[in-house]
Amino acid sequence: MNGKQAAGERAVDYIKDGMIVGLGTGSTVFYFLQALAKKVAEGLQVTGVVTSMQTAALAKELNIPLMDLNEATTIDVCIDGADEIFVADGSVYGIKGGGGALLFEKLVAEAAQQRIWIADESKTVTQLGAFGLPVEVVQFGYQQLERALAKRGYNPVLRRSADETPYLTDSGNYILDLQFEPITEPLALATELKHMTGVVEHGLFNQMTEVTIIATATGAVSVATF
Amino acid sequence: MNGKQAAGERAVDYIKDGMIVGLGTGSTVFYFLQALAKKVAEGLQVTGVVTSMQTAALAKELNIPLMDLNEATTIDVCIDGADEIFVADGSVYGIKGGGGALLFEKLVAEAAQQRIWIADESKTVTQLGAFGLPVEVVQFGYQQLERALAKRGYNPVLRRSADETPYLTDSGNYILDLQFEPITEPLALATELKHMTGVVEHGLFNQMTEVTIIATATGAVSVATF
Repeated sequence: MNGKQAAGERAVDYIKDGMIVGLGTGSTVFYFLQALAKKVAEGLQVTGVVTSMQTAALAKELNIPLMDLNEATTIDVCIDGADEIFVADGSVYGIKGGGGALLFEKLVAEAAQQRIWIADESKTVTQLGAFGLPVEVVQFGYQQLERALAKRGYNPVLRRSADETPYLTDSGNYILDLQFEPITEPLALATELKHMTGVVEHGLFNQMTEVTIIATATGAVSVATF
Repeated sequence: MNGKQAAGERAVDYIKDGMIVGLGTGSTVFYFLQALAKKVAEGLQVTGVVTSMQTAALAKELNIPLMDLNEATTIDVCIDGADEIFVADGSVYGIKGGGGALLFEKLVAEAAQQRIWIADESKTVTQLGAFGLPVEVVQFGYQQLERALAKRGYNPVLRRSADETPYLTDSGNYILDLQFEPITEPLALATELKHMTGVVEHGLFNQMTEVTIIATATGAVSVATF
């Protein structure tokens, strides 16, 4: 058992019969989906709303029933990972987007009644920013935005795929990875980035999480509610 | 001569040799491009930066040299139309996006040193909003956003093409046309819309225009500077 597996499996305790469940993206969510699929095979009725094409493919493989975000008038709970988790003044702040799915993840999280983050303990930080901040941007003229961000000292780097072509999100946008270290004002930074024309979404998830499930490498799990 | 033609042709006076020129989109810009092409054929050196695939096609047909927005370290002047033009407290406010190009138009306008709007006098209004406000949104789960906008009383309607399929922008996004009438606080509304996850851009162009060239149906032109 590793931390990701322990946290992912514990999250299944929050899934009740009949729920509509937001399904995050990434290596910790992978374990959650495996555990959820086992419950579904045993008779648990749930419907998933995916946050990426990657998760859609995995959920189908695991026979987890899915619905489109458009059709979901409510999502009971959303289970997702995070790249950095920071707690301040009783709220959870974090960075997501290492896997490139930040836009769909945020759309699903915003539609959910309860948001639960699952992670191994390496993801908890005492200040945000070491991971870098992914920002999804419009392709057209993106270098204008890159120059504007560089001028502000945010060190943007265009994300590339293994073949060196620009990485494309599920919406066909680019990602600029910013580097700060640390991010001291996540709320102000979120507002600043959202206001820039060409920014579709950024990876700051501020005060959008009610439960964290964090596990150590030996499988010891801590649950916190916010 | 109609108003669009008169305004479009007058804008050519602002184009000097060696300039990089933002080329807007739409039926008034059409006349500007015709007049500009004539000057180019006579020897004027300019390079255009387009705001839509439609304008790119027209500019190529007219032999106006083009460069990519990415390559433009500066744009000297941007000439564009507008769907509504409203002047208050010495600033120009307006609505764009009837032609669906609002995102690229705003990106090019923001990169320009001087922004000139050309229009026939029917576009000037005493309050904003009768035209409707186009908002470019991410396809994924757009109905969540549509419901949220409806709840706020903004009457969103998904724009459709002639064949009834959803209209797609040059970036592959959808457009929700909102209906207010009137828009009394354009700055606050712009901020509110930009903050909504899934909104890529909106058609409010607040305080982004330095010159307006407005013409009557008989071809009388008024130029104003802000």
